[in-house]
Amino acid sequence: MPVEIVDRSRALLEDETGQVSAEVDAFFAAILTAPGDGRDRLFEAMRHAMIGGGKRLRPLLAVAAARLFAIDPERALRVGAAIEAIHVYSLIHDDLPCMDNDDLRRGKPTVHKAFGEDAAVLAGDSLHALAFEILADSRTHEDPFVRSDLVVELARAAGPSGMAGGQMMDLVAEGQQLDLAAITRLQQLKTGALIEYSVEAPCIMARLPADGRRPYRGYARNIGLAFQIADDLIDHSGDESSAGKRTGKDASAGKATFVSVLGADRARQQARWLVDQAIEHLDGHGGEADLLRAIARFAIERDY
Amino acid sequence: MPVEIVDRSRALLEDETGQVSAEVDAFFAAILTAPGDGRDRLFEAMRHAMIGGGKRLRPLLAVAAARLFAIDPERALRVGAAIEAIHVYSLIHDDLPCMDNDDLRRGKPTVHKAFGEDAAVLAGDSLHALAFEILADSRTHEDPFVRSDLVVELARAAGPSGMAGGQMMDLVAEGQQLDLAAITRLQQLKTGALIEYSVEAPCIMARLPADGRRPYRGYARNIGLAFQIADDLIDHSGDESSAGKRTGKDASAGKATFVSVLGADRARQQARWLVDQAIEHLDGHGGEADLLRAIARFAIERDY
Repeated sequence: MPVEIVDRSRALLEDETGQVSAEVDAFFAAILTAPGDGRDRLFEAMRHAMIGGGKRLRPLLAVAAARLFAIDPERALRVGAAIEAIHVYSLIHDDLPCMDNDDLRRGKPTVHKAFGEDAAVLAGDSLHALAFEILADSRTHEDPFVRSDLVVELARAAGPSGMAGGQMMDLVAEGQQLDLAAITRLQQLKTGALIEYSVEAPCIMARLPADGRRPYRGYARNIGLAFQIADDLIDHSGDESSAGKRTGKDASAGKATFVSVLGADRARQQARWLVDQAIEHLDGHGGEADLLRAIARFAIERDY
Repeated sequence: MPVEIVDRSRALLEDETGQVSAEVDAFFAAILTAPGDGRDRLFEAMRHAMIGGGKRLRPLLAVAAARLFAIDPERALRVGAAIEAIHVYSLIHDDLPCMDNDDLRRGKPTVHKAFGEDAAVLAGDSLHALAFEILADSRTHEDPFVRSDLVVELARAAGPSGMAGGQMMDLVAEGQQLDLAAITRLQQLKTGALIEYSVEAPCIMARLPADGRRPYRGYARNIGLAFQIADDLIDHSGDESSAGKRTGKDASAGKATFVSVLGADRARQQARWLVDQAIEHLDGHGGEADLLRAIARFAIERDY
């Protein structure tokens, strides 16, 4: 690929990431104002976790996919914010001592370290409910059919058939020898379902029928796996300061990853192939898909 | 009140409670079948918590209020099941060592005792998502406006402006001297919001405008407080075998309750007054409100 295209693609991605991050922060700063009663610690804990941190991949995907169908960017951001609330609640609970027991997240103390375990449980639960409140609000879409569909599919992506189910698989997998198919399945539930939803939600908002959504879900599935491989490579290479969290966890927990099964070189190759496939799914589109292409292109060039 | 009316009312309540309980059990037995993979422990934990226990007050209220508006009982049950899933997820998380640290719930070991803390966190999160999936499904109501409204109001009742916010208030209140107004506010969020939603949801399904829902919300608010006073009296009197959980918790945690502020006699009086008020809210109705009346009547005659 010519260097000027790569540079333009990177600049686009950096601009848009910066803008979406600022908008997500502003969105939650506005709705998470402390009520001035016994719930203030809860709202502070939610703000600590939700504002000012993270790559905002999921909102960025929602905004990027919304562009394909000329969906109002404010509405796309609401959907992105709802997805990010689900993602952040899962990080808060995942960091708890009884789960991954992490002290550091996005370069800051984890919620239970800063506010106590009880507040961390409740902050996660609160963000979980808030996501559905945001999504089903008429400001997200004027068509209640669309809103109901958005809710059903997010609940599936987040629940026992999606993210929460994948987290259970991950807990059970510790110390087990998983093969490539099993790791792929685990990751498709644990992180893939929510990433896929981030791209599918704008398709729902554009009222695409289920089979019309297929290429976009294919794009999302491919980059979801590519991001996971990139994460495994970061964890494997072990640079904590750029990762913003503890690294080398997988090896010390005896967890099978794409890197432990494929080796670093083949894992990197596989990620590149997934990115090429992802971009091919966007073939019918012109410049309006440039942001989705840029996201895919740099999925495997993060910090390593 | 004549003895034969009391007896008929009690028989109605017992019959309907038994039937709703069996239906809720059957509903969750059907959807929580183990997937036969790494998620089996998660599904077992959800079944342990969801099936075969509890008074099923919230589904009973939903079914009873649905009767006022001749809503299809199967749909009312779906809504009741979604509310119960929220209630049970909150019990699972509330029982965790970092929260109330309880070993016993509904006469059985708590989920973290039986399946581990990690599975308990995820089982709660899974039931939380599942509730919204059930609610937004077209089998719950044919009108997507109604489904979206059901979702928004449940999310409000469960989240930081409702149940989860009330739980935070409760944590902060330990060892504090709350007055009657503060305890009332705390309970209206912690348990009242979901009880109120149980009665409001059928009003939404019947497409009642907001001001038409007011008497039914009034009924629910009154019995919610009456039930809380009854709970406080049980905790105060301390019969663990009939309560199915640890009692005397509030006093040992230094928590202000309706009983600690009012004394047992005045608390009992206040509960009776709330029940009378609740029943008055149903004045425009005939026999179709008998079940709601029976629920109110026996709110304060539970196990003490």
